[in-house]
Amino acid sequence: MDTNPLLSAIETELQRQVGRLDSPRTRVFYEMMTYHMGWTGEGAGPEATGKRIRPLMLLLCAVSCGANWQFALPAAAAVELVHNFSLVHDDIEDNSHKRRSRTTLWKKWGMPQGINAGDGLFVLSNLAITDLADSYKAETVVRAAQILHNTCLDLTRGQFLDISYEKRDDLTVEDYWPMVTGKTAALLSCCCQLGALLGEADEATQEAYRSFGHFLGLAFQVQDDILGIWGDEAMTGKSAASDLVEGKKSLPVLFGLQKKGRFAARWKEGPIRSDEVEEVASMLAEESAYESSHAAARQMTEMALTNLREADPQGEAGEALIELANKLLGRRQ
Amino acid sequence: MDTNPLLSAIETELQRQVGRLDSPRTRVFYEMMTYHMGWTGEGAGPEATGKRIRPLMLLLCAVSCGANWQFALPAAAAVELVHNFSLVHDDIEDNSHKRRSRTTLWKKWGMPQGINAGDGLFVLSNLAITDLADSYKAETVVRAAQILHNTCLDLTRGQFLDISYEKRDDLTVEDYWPMVTGKTAALLSCCCQLGALLGEADEATQEAYRSFGHFLGLAFQVQDDILGIWGDEAMTGKSAASDLVEGKKSLPVLFGLQKKGRFAARWKEGPIRSDEVEEVASMLAEESAYESSHAAARQMTEMALTNLREADPQGEAGEALIELANKLLGRRQ
Repeated sequence: MDTNPLLSAIETELQRQVGRLDSPRTRVFYEMMTYHMGWTGEGAGPEATGKRIRPLMLLLCAVSCGANWQFALPAAAAVELVHNFSLVHDDIEDNSHKRRSRTTLWKKWGMPQGINAGDGLFVLSNLAITDLADSYKAETVVRAAQILHNTCLDLTRGQFLDISYEKRDDLTVEDYWPMVTGKTAALLSCCCQLGALLGEADEATQEAYRSFGHFLGLAFQVQDDILGIWGDEAMTGKSAASDLVEGKKSLPVLFGLQKKGRFAARWKEGPIRSDEVEEVASMLAEESAYESSHAAARQMTEMALTNLREADPQGEAGEALIELANKLLGRRQ
Repeated sequence: MDTNPLLSAIETELQRQVGRLDSPRTRVFYEMMTYHMGWTGEGAGPEATGKRIRPLMLLLCAVSCGANWQFALPAAAAVELVHNFSLVHDDIEDNSHKRRSRTTLWKKWGMPQGINAGDGLFVLSNLAITDLADSYKAETVVRAAQILHNTCLDLTRGQFLDISYEKRDDLTVEDYWPMVTGKTAALLSCCCQLGALLGEADEATQEAYRSFGHFLGLAFQVQDDILGIWGDEAMTGKSAASDLVEGKKSLPVLFGLQKKGRFAARWKEGPIRSDEVEEVASMLAEESAYESSHAAARQMTEMALTNLREADPQGEAGEALIELANKLLGRRQ
């Protein structure tokens, strides 16, 4: 299935949703949104918009359950707006100056406007989901809204854990899963569940789609963590081992800390410098953190694929969904 | 009508809604909410919770249209949670260290957790509104959600204007109304409209309630602006003229700037010191800003009361609503 018409329709729907703010008096407020979404300002273009993986997943899930994807577009826009609201706030919370090689919204317009613009994107996602009322019965709209809002609650829970972990040095691998469940898996799981709901799948199938998205998110995050320490820059676009310098408590690091060996001893001494990154990454691999992380990634991937089989996505959209999942999981076709 | 049972039920419903976050792993996240809501931590108690005017207005509007107020409680909680989410973010945006004589959430737990806790309160309000599904048909829930979300969009628009006004010195009285419409009137207007909707009033009556809330909000804000410059501390709890020292572009100040007289000249020289506040306030009054602001307050009050008569609230709740409106408008009974 050619996903280009879907991606193009997603972009149009996002522009329509964000367009609610296009009025003379709040023109600059609107510009903040269009800048962050990658449509306007320095560096605007496909590189700046991101891949729109989440709304695409939602539409493919919907179609693979038999839906007309056009009807599901407001929900697709809603999940992408949630993702972007959380990026805008995360950038402030993490003091990040750059995102996708562009100045972050809050660095460009200041912290107060940045917080408020994130709030604005969040409101737009709430409005988008109620637009489903144009094509679906009200009961379905309320159910979709509840799924979306519960997901957002998980996002804020995950973000709370992420921020509070920064100051803790007693973390174990068990602390990792609730954090990434909120930060990464919740929204992907929401996309798949919403797709199935809008495709009018039965409860059991909705649950299989939901679980597929959940484990896909976990598998993807673990792989991202592995690449953040041992991955190659050309492939991921981010410098390998930068996660070590940033002190990010990713899964390999938590495996390493648990060993209480050389890596743990070095980690406790203070921030890791760029010039020792290769050595520390090797240290971590020698203490089997690479192996353990890969095993975790494999396990999550298997769970994702088991649930995907259970969901049994139909037709060309089903094939496209399997293809997208394999791509995200870094598997050869 | 005794409003105490309503206020007590509002508090219980708020605790139930916020209770969604009460789980062992996110206990501290939950504590941030209960602290901000005034239930726990230093200075907890009635002084810290605020007056819950908005949810009370919503319930009184609902009952005065014939609703059972118990059914409308989730909507009452939703508007109060929106109000509190915006306070948490406003405090960060304004760099405020104190609210109701207590340390602000973000000063206590840090800026990153503060932004995220505000997001959490916002999500809780979204979830609360969908809880109306327990008592109302899905179409009404979707309509209520749309009203709430559109109000939140107005709030972020108003906040955008408020922040951007700080750096502008070309503002006129015309710039004032869109800003306070978003910041103050939108949420009060939402409370009254939601009340009428949940009381199953017809469209015209819903519109009259909405307009009543809108003008009530504007009248209240103008009065607050007047008190912020000439009011007495004992009555308002905030030191008179503190708005002048803070450089707040309130309505009297905009009237004064428009005159381009002595006040405008002094304002342009830089921040007003505490020791000259009385003199500058007199200057402003002499240039008829006091008079003009009072005329605006009277006009908004009249509009509010005209719409309230049009809404024609029934029974004891209607009387309590009129009483509450008069109290907010500083009018003798």
